Amino acid sequence: MKLSQFKSPKERREFLEQKLKISLSKISQAFVDEEKDIHCENLIGETTLPLGVAGPLLISYQEKRNEYYLPLATTEGALVASVNRGCKAITLSGGTNIFVEDNGITRGPVFETKNLEESFALKKFIEENFSLIKKEAEKTSSHLKLLRYEIKIIGHLVYLRFFYDTDLAMGMNMATIATQAIVNLIEEKTKIKCIAIAGNFDLDKKAAWLNFSSPRGLSGWGEVFLSNEILKSVLKTTKEKIYQVWSDKNLQGSIISGSLGFNGHFANIMAAFFAATGQDLAHVVEGSLGITTARVDKNGLYFSIYLPSIVLGMIGGGTKLSAKKEAIAITKAKDKKELASILVGGVLAGEISLLASLAEGTLACSHQRLGR
Amino acid sequence: MKLSQFKSPKERREFLEQKLKISLSKISQAFVDEEKDIHCENLIGETTLPLGVAGPLLISYQEKRNEYYLPLATTEGALVASVNRGCKAITLSGGTNIFVEDNGITRGPVFETKNLEESFALKKFIEENFSLIKKEAEKTSSHLKLLRYEIKIIGHLVYLRFFYDTDLAMGMNMATIATQAIVNLIEEKTKIKCIAIAGNFDLDKKAAWLNFSSPRGLSGWGEVFLSNEILKSVLKTTKEKIYQVWSDKNLQGSIISGSLGFNGHFANIMAAFFAATGQDLAHVVEGSLGITTARVDKNGLYFSIYLPSIVLGMIGGGTKLSAKKEAIAITKAKDKKELASILVGGVLAGEISLLASLAEGTLACSHQRLGR
Amino acid sequence: MKLSQFKSPKERREFLEQKLKISLSKISQAFVDEEKDIHCENLIGETTLPLGVAGPLLISYQEKRNEYYLPLATTEGALVASVNRGCKAITLSGGTNIFVEDNGITRGPVFETKNLEESFALKKFIEENFSLIKKEAEKTSSHLKLLRYEIKIIGHLVYLRFFYDTDLAMGMNMATIATQAIVNLIEEKTKIKCIAIAGNFDLDKKAAWLNFSSPRGLSGWGEVFLSNEILKSVLKTTKEKIYQVWSDKNLQGSIISGSLGFNGHFANIMAAFFAATGQDLAHVVEGSLGITTARVDKNGLYFSIYLPSIVLGMIGGGTKLSAKKEAIAITKAKDKKELASILVGGVLAGEISLLASLAEGTLACSHQRLGR
Amino acid sequence: MKLSQFKSPKERREFLEQKLKISLSKISQAFVDEEKDIHCENLIGETTLPLGVAGPLLISYQEKRNEYYLPLATTEGALVASVNRGCKAITLSGGTNIFVEDNGITRGPVFETKNLEESFALKKFIEENFSLIKKEAEKTSSHLKLLRYEIKIIGHLVYLRFFYDTDLAMGMNMATIATQAIVNLIEEKTKIKCIAIAGNFDLDKKAAWLNFSSPRGLSGWGEVFLSNEILKSVLKTTKEKIYQVWSDKNLQGSIISGSLGFNGHFANIMAAFFAATGQDLAHVVEGSLGITTARVDKNGLYFSIYLPSIVLGMIGGGTKLSAKKEAIAITKAKDKKELASILVGGVLAGEISLLASLAEGTLACSHQRLGR
Repeated sequence: MKLSQFKSPKERREFLEQKLKISLSKISQAFVDEEKDIHCENLIGETTLPLGVAGPLLISYQEKRNEYYLPLATTEGALVASVNRGCKAITLSGGTNIFVEDNGITRGPVFETKNLEESFALKKFIEENFSLIKKEAEKTSSHLKLLRYEIKIIGHLVYLRFFYDTDLAMGMNMATIATQAIVNLIEEKTKIKCIAIAGNFDLDKKAAWLNFSSPRGLSGWGEVFLSNEILKSVLKTTKEKIYQVWSDKNLQGSIISGSLGFNGHFANIMAAFFAATGQDLAHVVEGSLGITTARVDKNGLYFSIYLPSIVLGMIGGGTKLSAKKEAIAITKAKDKKELASILVGGVLAGEISLLASLAEGTLACSHQRLGR
Repeated sequence: MKLSQFKSPKERREFLEQKLKISLSKISQAFVDEEKDIHCENLIGETTLPLGVAGPLLISYQEKRNEYYLPLATTEGALVASVNRGCKAITLSGGTNIFVEDNGITRGPVFETKNLEESFALKKFIEENFSLIKKEAEKTSSHLKLLRYEIKIIGHLVYLRFFYDTDLAMGMNMATIATQAIVNLIEEKTKIKCIAIAGNFDLDKKAAWLNFSSPRGLSGWGEVFLSNEILKSVLKTTKEKIYQVWSDKNLQGSIISGSLGFNGHFANIMAAFFAATGQDLAHVVEGSLGITTARVDKNGLYFSIYLPSIVLGMIGGGTKLSAKKEAIAITKAKDKKELASILVGGVLAGEISLLASLAEGTLACSHQRLGR
Repeated sequence: MKLSQFKSPKERREFLEQKLKISLSKISQAFVDEEKDIHCENLIGETTLPLGVAGPLLISYQEKRNEYYLPLATTEGALVASVNRGCKAITLSGGTNIFVEDNGITRGPVFETKNLEESFALKKFIEENFSLIKKEAEKTSSHLKLLRYEIKIIGHLVYLRFFYDTDLAMGMNMATIATQAIVNLIEEKTKIKCIAIAGNFDLDKKAAWLNFSSPRGLSGWGEVFLSNEILKSVLKTTKEKIYQVWSDKNLQGSIISGSLGFNGHFANIMAAFFAATGQDLAHVVEGSLGITTARVDKNGLYFSIYLPSIVLGMIGGGTKLSAKKEAIAITKAKDKKELASILVGGVLAGEISLLASLAEGTLACSHQRLGR
Repeated sequence: MKLSQFKSPKERREFLEQKLKISLSKISQAFVDEEKDIHCENLIGETTLPLGVAGPLLISYQEKRNEYYLPLATTEGALVASVNRGCKAITLSGGTNIFVEDNGITRGPVFETKNLEESFALKKFIEENFSLIKKEAEKTSSHLKLLRYEIKIIGHLVYLRFFYDTDLAMGMNMATIATQAIVNLIEEKTKIKCIAIAGNFDLDKKAAWLNFSSPRGLSGWGEVFLSNEILKSVLKTTKEKIYQVWSDKNLQGSIISGSLGFNGHFANIMAAFFAATGQDLAHVVEGSLGITTARVDKNGLYFSIYLPSIVLGMIGGGTKLSAKKEAIAITKAKDKKELASILVGGVLAGEISLLASLAEGTLACSHQRLGR
């Protein structure tokens, strides 16, 4: 008997309980009351994650200045408390300025040609027929726009990377469907064969320098100036100490490790925010790439972060589930860029708080107290 | 009024509902009935993720040969179905052989010295006093053993990386506490100051070459031989086509992107398995590093995967929650290495299925059908 | 007495001979008869390198089809012989097709602003004033054109990367001088300070992903189709064996090493060609980045190479020396792109020959015979 | 008529002069008077490079304290002058402390097995038979010792990396021959086939993280403390300015470029020193990897450099040529480690001088004055 032959989560649970001699009582309690919005095959129920909230966090973004709350789903003790402390320090400092740019989501097919001549001919074809390609791609959805593309020729292999504006959606599915239409067009017109619609030049769900130098999704920048006083009263440390941890850990420690993340723990806050708001958790891999900067002056510490490739959405996918909608409602975000700006603010808060904790040698203590 | 001042999730929810004029009815339904095991500050409830199951998957691991089921929490349509198809192909092929090694979990403090002379003196001190250091570290927990260390000197900075056996636990917390004890000892004996207990030489929750060349956590290898017939009947493709996608996408497509992941979508399966079994989701970042190999012969396709740095646990952290315990029960794993072996099998299944789908150009279709 | 106080190489040599009690008779023989063209301070004479020649090599480049000779200065036994064997195999196969693109040489200053707002304002200033900037840069030389730029904002740091067409010259010096003019203009107009005219975003004389994904200097592609017969008669091996060495060494061996070079020994041929033709030897570092591809079919082996960032010149710098001029004369190249095309052909020849040698297990033998 | 058919450089020159209608008068002047020591096929003569000398440079290395001169062959104006200025600043500061470790030279064969079981069996075979392997390798030369090895298993591929002490020689040839003996032994005993004796896990003449985290050749560290006064009088700048250029360029500028070199211009000094002393120029690729550190205090600037993988020799290869011998004589080095220590000192001098020049905005000027 196969799992896919059963008609309901309940039947599948019962099959597994009997076969494996286990109880799935907790999972069975879970309220699968919105099956039409669930895209998960062989469903047996739901699993849960604790949901905490950090904030308020004062953010200046595109002329607006608001206090936000951040929903964070995590099982790591001390994480929400740490972000919360960072939010307090930032808010008392007059808030963080956030900048967000939408690069578009990418899909990257790979074609195989006979030789370099044909590879360069394909390059020329795409240059000359971009408006045709664009039209073909945009036929697949009224919410999708083809923005631009990148190309790399390696002998008989031609890698393309199409960037799409997908409005409120994260858009990987829309991008895949649009790229299939492009692939069909190219194959038909040039007789050159596509090897794979996703040729890893996308570059989806992987840590890669390409996502650093030519980002996909949204790029976010955040900054704050922490006064000497706030450093002392809220973060219990000094600018010199944070600066030193930043330089020795985030920069030089990352360098000697061959790391693509020049930060303390971007991944922690991003994973918790993604789990809360229904994003694709595998996008934490490229999303947590990024770098921090610091500068000390007489009055305090300037600190900033840069996250090149944030991939998230407001509609579609996991965001359709009620619990995720409610979490997004907590953020009050109106669009993807605003949602990303809140995430960036949260990452900044978490980063500052962790560096302060490391600077004071209190990390082990707080994990012992709040930890697992 | 601050969130941390409220006493219960219910009060916090009500505060947010009122302040933000939103409803948190779905989140409030969630059954927070095990608060003592929840390590999440400013808790307002729980959020849910659909839970599917793939399998059975036939695995040979350490002389044993069993059929396993894999719990996968995801909102990405087609993911469970895809892994399931891979499981079928592998199981019909006689199963996958899995190898797992436990490198130990790492914590990496950074020290600052006066100059190179003192840096090399610190190196010598640690060499000569390793048994003392080991004893000190192991005092902090009866479940922890210090295995070995790595060291890197960069001028006045000395980076250390301690590897710990932490038994059934993932162990980052235990490792942090043990490393604090080591740091205290070194500071006391040498008067050399620790700048940060976590100096990014760990290297925790970041994609880094160090985690590839000198892995942390568990390293897993999996392989399968797919006959021409199974490739045709189950995966609807041929060995030549999969081989070509593998070479052009997983290898060359990753290379030109400066990627640290030479695979199709390790991150997808790992994130879903981690979310289901209560692992730290940020560990998907280093966990999804890895490479695939392929070889064609007359009879079919040999395919293998390598995941250098899998960080997971059976006890502690998120695994304490009932829903996660039940998911772990589905796997029937007895220890961390067996749990990792099942994950590796699932990743192999997902990889084969994706490459087959790409080879046949059906990715867009299946996402359109099962997608979001 | 300081070396710089002496007036001639002879006096400096005599000073060193006396002070260090050594003989510099070989160096003193060297004919420093073109001092006005030598840019080397504290000159004591010249040092020599053996100069060999490989070829003829049949190259198709931009509609032309010619046989070329390659001057190679080296002390590594077997290198010229190996390239020569590759030239023979390629020429007998009907030659190699080469494509070259000139991306322009780069210089990359870094500016420091007050905060993100000013960083983005600087970005806007440069966008809006590009034609002014271009005019200012091009005032510094009639042989220089500013082509385009790239920008990266990291908090209070703004990195720019200017691409220049420098005609027949390699152009780093011209680019530096032009960039200084740009820096002066920007500083004057915006009051934003330049920290360094070369901020490593160039990225000059370093191995970096940026030089792979967004190349500097010239990019070169070369390919050849080797028939089964030529593989057997000239290279003493088979297509399957070369293919396997290519995949296991150039791709997978490089991947597991975290290498930026996915090739056998690009650096060898490039260093020898650069030393012969008066190029800056430190440019071998980024120049030897690159990747190879291979494909087997019924009739033989398709093999191609890609070198993204070749930095070289026909005039200026070391190319002014008579011995270098003569070596360039051997190549018969008319411009930088043709010179690069010959180098690419030579690298292709060297690569094929090495892989054949590895495939047959004859590397150790030939080094024992011709080696040092 | 083929070049290899001629008997002498003179005949080959005449052939080329006639065929290409060029003059090789400069090359023909060159005194090829030591052909037995020249390992360069199709020799047509010699080519020259201007040779300058920097120094004296005061170095403390292994209890000794000496003034050294550095031979530098280059055509880049301002390079020797720049290194010389750095030497002066360091020497007036009481000199640089240098540390050097010899990791051994590496050769890395790749083997192909049937499957993971056989791959792990090969691993076990090597562990258990290391002394036998060592004996076999050391039979090939009395100057070679097998120190240790590294291993990486990727499915059916097994990568090995053998480290050899090769005494005064750079040793790549000796290592290749010894590795061939090991390969023969392994193939005979295990019937597992070697695909290539050099499988890029060496990792030879390529920029790679492996050469950073697990270095080959010699690793060198150098440091200096520059007082405020010397910064002002010799380097014409301040500690704060150098520190800022270091952080913004060497660290953060390199990071955003995906660079493996976190320095200003290690490659320049290394290439010039290698060309002068007869080293293999392609080894500049991995040799110029490295990182710098800086620290400011009340009295001045602490600055240090780390070069992980310096590959050079005192005997064999290019060092056999008289002009190279004389250049090595200028250094007065007694062994490889001392030679490396002088190179490290020179790199430190060049680095300090460049950063000072960038800090003061004088780079363009000095290149305009001394440049090409």
